[in-house]
Amino acid sequence: MHPRRQQELVKLIARLGLPVNTQVNWCLLDMALTHPTMGIPNYEQLEFIGDSVVRLAASEFLWETYPDKSVGDFSAIRKVLVSDRILAQIADSYGLDRYLVLAASAIGDPSGRISRLADAFEAVLAALYLTTNNLSLIRSWLDPHFQKLATEILEDPARQNYKDALQEWTQGKYKALPEYRVREDTGTSDRSRRFIAEVWFRDKQLGTGTGQSKKAAEQAAAKVAFALLTQ
Amino acid sequence: MHPRRQQELVKLIARLGLPVNTQVNWCLLDMALTHPTMGIPNYEQLEFIGDSVVRLAASEFLWETYPDKSVGDFSAIRKVLVSDRILAQIADSYGLDRYLVLAASAIGDPSGRISRLADAFEAVLAALYLTTNNLSLIRSWLDPHFQKLATEILEDPARQNYKDALQEWTQGKYKALPEYRVREDTGTSDRSRRFIAEVWFRDKQLGTGTGQSKKAAEQAAAKVAFALLTQ
Repeated sequence: MHPRRQQELVKLIARLGLPVNTQVNWCLLDMALTHPTMGIPNYEQLEFIGDSVVRLAASEFLWETYPDKSVGDFSAIRKVLVSDRILAQIADSYGLDRYLVLAASAIGDPSGRISRLADAFEAVLAALYLTTNNLSLIRSWLDPHFQKLATEILEDPARQNYKDALQEWTQGKYKALPEYRVREDTGTSDRSRRFIAEVWFRDKQLGTGTGQSKKAAEQAAAKVAFALLTQ
Repeated sequence: MHPRRQQELVKLIARLGLPVNTQVNWCLLDMALTHPTMGIPNYEQLEFIGDSVVRLAASEFLWETYPDKSVGDFSAIRKVLVSDRILAQIADSYGLDRYLVLAASAIGDPSGRISRLADAFEAVLAALYLTTNNLSLIRSWLDPHFQKLATEILEDPARQNYKDALQEWTQGKYKALPEYRVREDTGTSDRSRRFIAEVWFRDKQLGTGTGQSKKAAEQAAAKVAFALLTQ
């Protein structure tokens, strides 16, 4: 590895709040921050492991922090904590994209930014996990993020999953499902408004929402509808 | 914990092939082998953690053993390795049900046996993981099971997921999905034939199968159809 690359990675470790002299498997960390457009090796295999690492870290955190919560609450919270949206948000808080090596062709695809950041972040977690074969290089800095998010989620009756909450509500009341209609707004330059979703139920439009992905737009529409119905 | 219960658990640890003097968090292991019908504490929360533990163990195993396989292969194999069917099968090879404490009402429900064994097994993995905060009490005896299974799965072009394989085939060739029709045979006393599935494609019945669950019956029917179509 080029000494300059290693210096960069050392900086990232410091940013995470780990001690300056922390020994990390630097080759794995480099791989974790290499996009598939750069050929092989890249972060794909590490991401596969990292997906399990982050689930385990979230599970342990919930078990230790909320001994009295039900497994249903655990599942609802974990689902949000390990979602691409949240992982990309945590990655962004450390400026992870500055460390990610990718081909120019991929940079030109802003719509893939969230999944790319989330994937690379999972791969970084795998590299840290595989350095020590435990979560000791991860939980010290990841737990505070989880704590803040879990508190928010527990305060929210929909557990931040408005599509599920809306579906449960309409099924419970009317034994029927809401319907989503999504279109792409190719005219906008605002990435966060690229998709527009409408949610319909029993021939009525209950809400609209926009987002960077179809799913995000649907969630935004469901949030409006859920607020309307449960007021 | 009653000394007799502890003696039992010590025997289970020996069965797994771990050294006789292995120190385990016995209270957690006891909890892992306590069914929800016995009240609280029971294995539910540990199962939630164990689900992540087994995914991580499988991911690490695949990464170490098959460095050249694609992430697609990893995913297909891991999906089988962490399935209830396989986890219950591994649990059975250690006679885990003899250690599981459950109310008589649950014993009378043989249909839940597979999910119960799989759940308790995941909880046991969590108890072992939480004892050391790493996989050191797990991989020594779990890896040989994974190795045997992974070899079988890799030899199988459908990766033991015949429903997915059949769907890929029909979508690839005809851009259409097969259809399943499942009914319950309430007349049979043979549990393994409780559900009967037919798989249909373009107005033709391609195969039938039976199983202990709807899903198992559909997989069996898909296996027949997949063999028929790819011969």
